[in-house]
Amino acid sequence: MILFYHPGACSLAVHIALIETGMPYKLVSITKDKRTSDGRDFLKINPKGFVPTLELDDETVLGEALAILAYVCHRTGTLLPEDGRVRWQALEATSFMTTEVHGNFKPFWKNAPEPEKENARQALVKHFDILAGQLGNQAFLTGDRMTIADPYLFVMLMWASIHGIKVSERFDAFFTRMNALPSVAQALAEEGLA
Amino acid sequence: MILFYHPGACSLAVHIALIETGMPYKLVSITKDKRTSDGRDFLKINPKGFVPTLELDDETVLGEALAILAYVCHRTGTLLPEDGRVRWQALEATSFMTTEVHGNFKPFWKNAPEPEKENARQALVKHFDILAGQLGNQAFLTGDRMTIADPYLFVMLMWASIHGIKVSERFDAFFTRMNALPSVAQALAEEGLA
Repeated sequence: MILFYHPGACSLAVHIALIETGMPYKLVSITKDKRTSDGRDFLKINPKGFVPTLELDDETVLGEALAILAYVCHRTGTLLPEDGRVRWQALEATSFMTTEVHGNFKPFWKNAPEPEKENARQALVKHFDILAGQLGNQAFLTGDRMTIADPYLFVMLMWASIHGIKVSERFDAFFTRMNALPSVAQALAEEGLA
Repeated sequence: MILFYHPGACSLAVHIALIETGMPYKLVSITKDKRTSDGRDFLKINPKGFVPTLELDDETVLGEALAILAYVCHRTGTLLPEDGRVRWQALEATSFMTTEVHGNFKPFWKNAPEPEKENARQALVKHFDILAGQLGNQAFLTGDRMTIADPYLFVMLMWASIHGIKVSERFDAFFTRMNALPSVAQALAEEGLA
């Protein structure tokens, strides 16, 4: 299976999850003009043009980080229990991050006018506060075991740091713990970010 | 279980799904200042303050449309197969709508400056085109049976109509089909939108 990615984009969360779950994968990066690094027209693979996109061995194509994460966990039986509190809280947190958190970073990378950025900044501070409250003193967002929400949160915290969004110190231990994982080190190295 | 909602918000997709799945529910609406219609402080129930929010009978609280939809389907065994192409395409489409489509309606309801609205309008036209391509001549977005993606698409098409986003005629038959469902009629009536 192929993971189409941009270095440091939210596809990094899927990349980390693929390593954590032990799912074999090949990486293909996408250029700004939507070509793949193996020379194909990416819009013919995924007309939405977004990463992450997963191409399965039977050429089925799956887009959207949350759907891909849920798929990978379903195939491997890891990072997302099949039922129970942790499953639903992990799906809720991941959905919250893919919608409200990810969405409020967009004004920064499209260099929107300052008032638009300031609104986004205020929303992000509030959203990260909510996630910090949920994390509390736990090792991971939904308890003592990693779920799909954690690699996604790790990427959102990287973005917060890049764009100067001040987040709670409660995240420090979490970020350090994630950053020390072999899966994270491998994913960052493979994306040229180590 | 209680569904907290605003009339016509994306909580309407969950409302329709609850009726379709036969899950018993009570409706509680939220005022602009985050009070519930049964007199509680909504931010104490869900600190994010968003609808839809589901409060289970054991007082567990679940937010985020996609997570709630997946939960309701898991409990009832309807609207989302446990595996297979339709499951992953339905999750992908719903995630796409909760992130890119829903997100691009925000400039309209917060009355953002015109250039911000125009960017959003262009993105929405493109996103609805992709969904129209996926729908094709099928009865529902992923084939001949309804999934969680369909009530969500129905609500997005309502919003497109409200905000003057021109969408493909391919949606006409789909919208008419959904609009004629007893579940949709009941949900619209219960939200005072009939």
